[in-house]
Amino acid sequence: MSRWQPDAQERLEHAALELFLEQGFASTTVPQITARAGLTTRTFFRHFTDKREVLFAGDDVTPAQMARLFTEAPPSLDPMTLLLERLGPGAVEVFAERSVDYLRRRRQVIDAEPALQERELRKFSLMARALKDGFLERGADELTASVAADIGVSAFRIGATRWIASDGTTDVAAEISRALFTLQQVVGRPDAAG
Amino acid sequence: MSRWQPDAQERLEHAALELFLEQGFASTTVPQITARAGLTTRTFFRHFTDKREVLFAGDDVTPAQMARLFTEAPPSLDPMTLLLERLGPGAVEVFAERSVDYLRRRRQVIDAEPALQERELRKFSLMARALKDGFLERGADELTASVAADIGVSAFRIGATRWIASDGTTDVAAEISRALFTLQQVVGRPDAAG
Repeated sequence: MSRWQPDAQERLEHAALELFLEQGFASTTVPQITARAGLTTRTFFRHFTDKREVLFAGDDVTPAQMARLFTEAPPSLDPMTLLLERLGPGAVEVFAERSVDYLRRRRQVIDAEPALQERELRKFSLMARALKDGFLERGADELTASVAADIGVSAFRIGATRWIASDGTTDVAAEISRALFTLQQVVGRPDAAG
Repeated sequence: MSRWQPDAQERLEHAALELFLEQGFASTTVPQITARAGLTTRTFFRHFTDKREVLFAGDDVTPAQMARLFTEAPPSLDPMTLLLERLGPGAVEVFAERSVDYLRRRRQVIDAEPALQERELRKFSLMARALKDGFLERGADELTASVAADIGVSAFRIGATRWIASDGTTDVAAEISRALFTLQQVVGRPDAAG
């Protein structure tokens, strides 16, 4: 085995996901993952702090990617237009390195394990904070920034979930747009029956 | 000490909160809490599974209280009108047995401890599920129900946070209405600058 494993992280991710699906998250150990991937535990711990983090690799960059939505947007853009124009393309970038098949199987593992669900909720909470900070820096008041951040996280989460559930027959940016349009519909027609 | 302690839960809550604030959540033990409250550990474990749950007593009923919003609402009410009319009064009911002072100090403890924040995120996730189920049962499609549930949780969380931060000089129902009106403003004026 060569010391330099350029695809080590991806091999560990796929091995871990296979084992989580085969025998459950709780029953899977780090040595089992490294054995399946044909790598050492030392390599594992160079990439991940524990087996839970394998499923959230790269997720820590999401808040930074969200923050980038703002630096690239003209200052005159109001929060909703910014989300409508930028959130979808931002999500495409976030998911660029993952196949829908990988994300669908990952979803299956997370749905079966409360500890993973809590980890995922924390991820979305960090994303909300990044979005809120971005709106505040653009001059929004505290309440508007909080509300707009929650809109962004909600549309991101709902859109990505629907995209993954569709097995990639739809498009993540299109699903996020649909979620935002649905929000406009729900909010904007307070007197319509539904 | 009499065996029947009608106010045992409240005494344990206040003792725990005092100790968490004085010496931190991690350094506080169940025997310290019961000593401060003048009660036995056996009494403690009749009310709570662990010290974390002391801060979330009663929170498990919140999804049930959210579900009740729906059973009492006429079937013709669309999701947004339902939230505008019922979410605020529902929150008043949820917080009826807590003083703002208790809630403000509780907030302080949670903000200092990631494990408590994760527990709180789970609470809001359960609330979102209860709201989504309610909207689905009223005939909303899956996407509309998901979006409307997230609106409800967002307005509840933002409104309650602002109410608690105001030290009770505002009203929780009024703060939730403000959050919902702000949402309408953010969503409804996609071409306005801001």
